[in-house]
Amino acid sequence: MSTRTPTARKEGPRSKRGVILEASIERFGHDGFEFTKWASIADQVGIGQTALYHYFESKAHCLLTIMSLELERSLEQFKAATSAVEDDVARLEAAIESAYGLTEREALSARILLSHMDLLTTARVSEREEVERQRARTLVRAIEDEWTALVQQGMDSGAFAPRDARQTGQALLALIISVWRWYRPGGRQSLADISRFMSGACLRLVGPDPR
Amino acid sequence: MSTRTPTARKEGPRSKRGVILEASIERFGHDGFEFTKWASIADQVGIGQTALYHYFESKAHCLLTIMSLELERSLEQFKAATSAVEDDVARLEAAIESAYGLTEREALSARILLSHMDLLTTARVSEREEVERQRARTLVRAIEDEWTALVQQGMDSGAFAPRDARQTGQALLALIISVWRWYRPGGRQSLADISRFMSGACLRLVGPDPR
Repeated sequence: MSTRTPTARKEGPRSKRGVILEASIERFGHDGFEFTKWASIADQVGIGQTALYHYFESKAHCLLTIMSLELERSLEQFKAATSAVEDDVARLEAAIESAYGLTEREALSARILLSHMDLLTTARVSEREEVERQRARTLVRAIEDEWTALVQQGMDSGAFAPRDARQTGQALLALIISVWRWYRPGGRQSLADISRFMSGACLRLVGPDPR
Repeated sequence: MSTRTPTARKEGPRSKRGVILEASIERFGHDGFEFTKWASIADQVGIGQTALYHYFESKAHCLLTIMSLELERSLEQFKAATSAVEDDVARLEAAIESAYGLTEREALSARILLSHMDLLTTARVSEREEVERQRARTLVRAIEDEWTALVQQGMDSGAFAPRDARQTGQALLALIISVWRWYRPGGRQSLADISRFMSGACLRLVGPDPR
């Protein structure tokens, strides 16, 4: 479990950005984005409307920021977990383990991200929203590139069966993140159980065909 | 390629329900749900606002209807493709092939469905919306049950490696539908290519561990 918080990013000591993000992750994650009234976040955090709009010009702007922060966290965690691992199979296992080594808040962010990926396909009219969307898209590509490289390296060394590395990496990533759609803390499966199952599934995916 | 249309369902010859659904699938699929003005659908179809609201009381009501129709289509297609197949491996292959045997309009519906699955988690205030949401949830469970049963049967016969059948079925389904997030007709990969890759991936997923 990690202690990272979104407050860590380029903010003065009196900035409310972090607490607004925390409150929004809670509300978007539990009640749903559509059902959260943007103005109610100001009340919850104890600031005025003007202050709220200073940090985020709209609910969508805040959502896109949560998404790009979660992508950034995920990319950094992937790199930290895999960069020093020499063995190809162990590197894949480390990547999967890191993907599920999340705090409850991070798991909630991951769910919000997965549920709103379609927002990234269409350009935003607002400039600040569009900046966050572009940032998120760049991070999605970077994460896909990391997975492709990991798979390609394993294929080159002969540890994984030779196939289209990008398609295979995309399939691994899709399988791993699909969990955030249904995962709930305290539910039937723990993140440790899920990580173990997915590790096996992903190793079979990159392995030889059974017959 | 199929010729099914959503108009087929319990409608009089002068009902506009089918054309409204067709237009909405186009717009939600290409422009995005958020970016489609609900009133503009009436103009596009050539009916008044009152007539539009007669069929669907809100944009969300129409979206939830598209989602449950797509789930219904997918369940029926799964059953039709698999019911007569005796061999466990061939049945899995038939299920995957049927999952990608979609018209462009059905692929668009599948994308809309995948992008808005989170809508199904929270109760709707409106009664008609809630009816469609419940219908969609029941269909999601029915589809998951079908996949679990298919996997369980293969595990029982020894064709697939013994594991948690529900977890395995859920993983297969997640992998298969993940494609609708990025698939575009005329893109780098055809549905036939995707189907072939996924067929291999799913067979490895239910197969033995490589070492």
